[in-house]
Amino acid sequence: MSDSPALAAPEPVHPLALPLLSGSRRALAKAITLTESTRPEHEVQAQRLLAQVLPRAGRSIRVGLTGVPGVGKSTFIEALGVWLANQGRRVAVLAVDPSSARTGGSIMGDKTRMPALTVHPNAFIRPSPSGGTLGGVARRTRETITLCEAAGYDVLLVETVGVGQSETQVAAMTDLFVLLTLPNAGDELQGIKRGIMELADLCVVNKADTNPKAATRAQTELRTALTLLTPHDAPWRPVALKASAVTGEGIPEVWAQVEQYAATVDLGARRHKQTAVWFDDLLREAAWKAFRAGVGAERIAQLRAEVQAGALTPVQGVQALLPQMWS
Amino acid sequence: MSDSPALAAPEPVHPLALPLLSGSRRALAKAITLTESTRPEHEVQAQRLLAQVLPRAGRSIRVGLTGVPGVGKSTFIEALGVWLANQGRRVAVLAVDPSSARTGGSIMGDKTRMPALTVHPNAFIRPSPSGGTLGGVARRTRETITLCEAAGYDVLLVETVGVGQSETQVAAMTDLFVLLTLPNAGDELQGIKRGIMELADLCVVNKADTNPKAATRAQTELRTALTLLTPHDAPWRPVALKASAVTGEGIPEVWAQVEQYAATVDLGARRHKQTAVWFDDLLREAAWKAFRAGVGAERIAQLRAEVQAGALTPVQGVQALLPQMWS
Repeated sequence: MSDSPALAAPEPVHPLALPLLSGSRRALAKAITLTESTRPEHEVQAQRLLAQVLPRAGRSIRVGLTGVPGVGKSTFIEALGVWLANQGRRVAVLAVDPSSARTGGSIMGDKTRMPALTVHPNAFIRPSPSGGTLGGVARRTRETITLCEAAGYDVLLVETVGVGQSETQVAAMTDLFVLLTLPNAGDELQGIKRGIMELADLCVVNKADTNPKAATRAQTELRTALTLLTPHDAPWRPVALKASAVTGEGIPEVWAQVEQYAATVDLGARRHKQTAVWFDDLLREAAWKAFRAGVGAERIAQLRAEVQAGALTPVQGVQALLPQMWS
Repeated sequence: MSDSPALAAPEPVHPLALPLLSGSRRALAKAITLTESTRPEHEVQAQRLLAQVLPRAGRSIRVGLTGVPGVGKSTFIEALGVWLANQGRRVAVLAVDPSSARTGGSIMGDKTRMPALTVHPNAFIRPSPSGGTLGGVARRTRETITLCEAAGYDVLLVETVGVGQSETQVAAMTDLFVLLTLPNAGDELQGIKRGIMELADLCVVNKADTNPKAATRAQTELRTALTLLTPHDAPWRPVALKASAVTGEGIPEVWAQVEQYAATVDLGARRHKQTAVWFDDLLREAAWKAFRAGVGAERIAQLRAEVQAGALTPVQGVQALLPQMWS
């Protein structure tokens, strides 16, 4: 052995790394929990673990899914997930739910939303992380994707709730983005913001069984709407399909389009850009932590109190620590 | 005059400050645009202007409003805004729309959404800022509120789109939060996330005219749902009302509840907490800018490229700049 600096202090292998790489669900669940922790010693461990398993990640198709409340996201994800898992695909479902900042969690538990997929041997379901800022949730989601891939899951379904910023963030960490809509497309199209439509690589009219005629009409209207938008993943042109999670109609066609998309678009280039965003987000977070440690939390608290008392404007409070700022 | 340090270098009054304080809409619009600019010299000017007008801000009631797409937010805000403006209140409407990150803007222009309010002499409507991160939008919204108040607007209606993180951010800069829902409450209640319900101080079943019976039922169901939640602004208990923006039914009752809320809750304490968040957000942004300037954008770009090439993991890239981080 040479005594090259790279070998001088070999980093110990994290105890979760090998079980995780060999596909242990338990190790995966524990690793995700470690990643979601905000305790400094857990963060150190989580980053070490991530660096160790990162070379084994990246071998999945990452699908983001969204739609307004009531569109049947859970049922659709379960139908698609079970269909894939029955074919031997290993399916991980992640939920990004930034809406409950106050208490964390949604009214219905995540496990009970997808009963058949929950018990499937080829599936892994991870409920929403509780609490935390959106930035925090997004960072964890990206790292959770990495961990699931390292554990051998080759289909990642990332569910996002709401019609807003979380979609943009999830689209920035997935390979393609699926927008679910309802057969009642008149109201839908009015409500769907152009920004969400523009993120979609695939639009699916769900619950097509409830009103087949309306579903076909909605599909046609979506097709028209999509042609009006500038394609964002050229040469791919977003497509509109219809499906029913209840009858299973359209599920194979949706997946065929996902594979068609993956064969058409340069996924490597898309992920290359996403890695840059990941690095930037981590650097921003680290810079803030370093700044806070340098200045001292007490000094920050003191200035915050002066700003709250009206003795300083917020900007003046910042300038007391960073005099060069805005001057 | 003494030569005390505080007077040594008097800061020049920003040219927009006096016209803005005397109520000029044109100065207000220009000041908001200045605040939204990301050019460094504009940021300096905007912060100077804000510090100068801040003492005249704070004298309004700040109302956040949200609801799923299709609930009739624009029509409701216009009906409420015109009703208030006709009574001599000066009403400013701000739209926070983080959903179109790709191109900015929504399918329908903001001006045409509220035709009667747009031309009312007592109203000021500011469309969504285009593009930018959510953090950016939120920062500008807070500062836009300050500018509108300094210009004499005493009712601030802040509209947020989508059901997610933007609501949490808007709730953190308003006095109370109104959730609009539809008469068809069965689907609604299933879809409304607990987190959004928990933010609401007031729930309004809109479009009550389209189905009066369903609206009354929805109101009852909302009341029940609200009693199950922990009140977050004690002693206030969130209330459920019904209204129709088209017929005007319920609009005065909604406003009566807003005033009742303002008389019940300690708004000063709520704003005191919000000021701390404002300071923290600004400090975080400033610390990042200072870090980036210190390290140099080129060095960051170089490490980003190494991370993208796979030579370093994202964490190792960060550690090259901040060796103490996660080690």
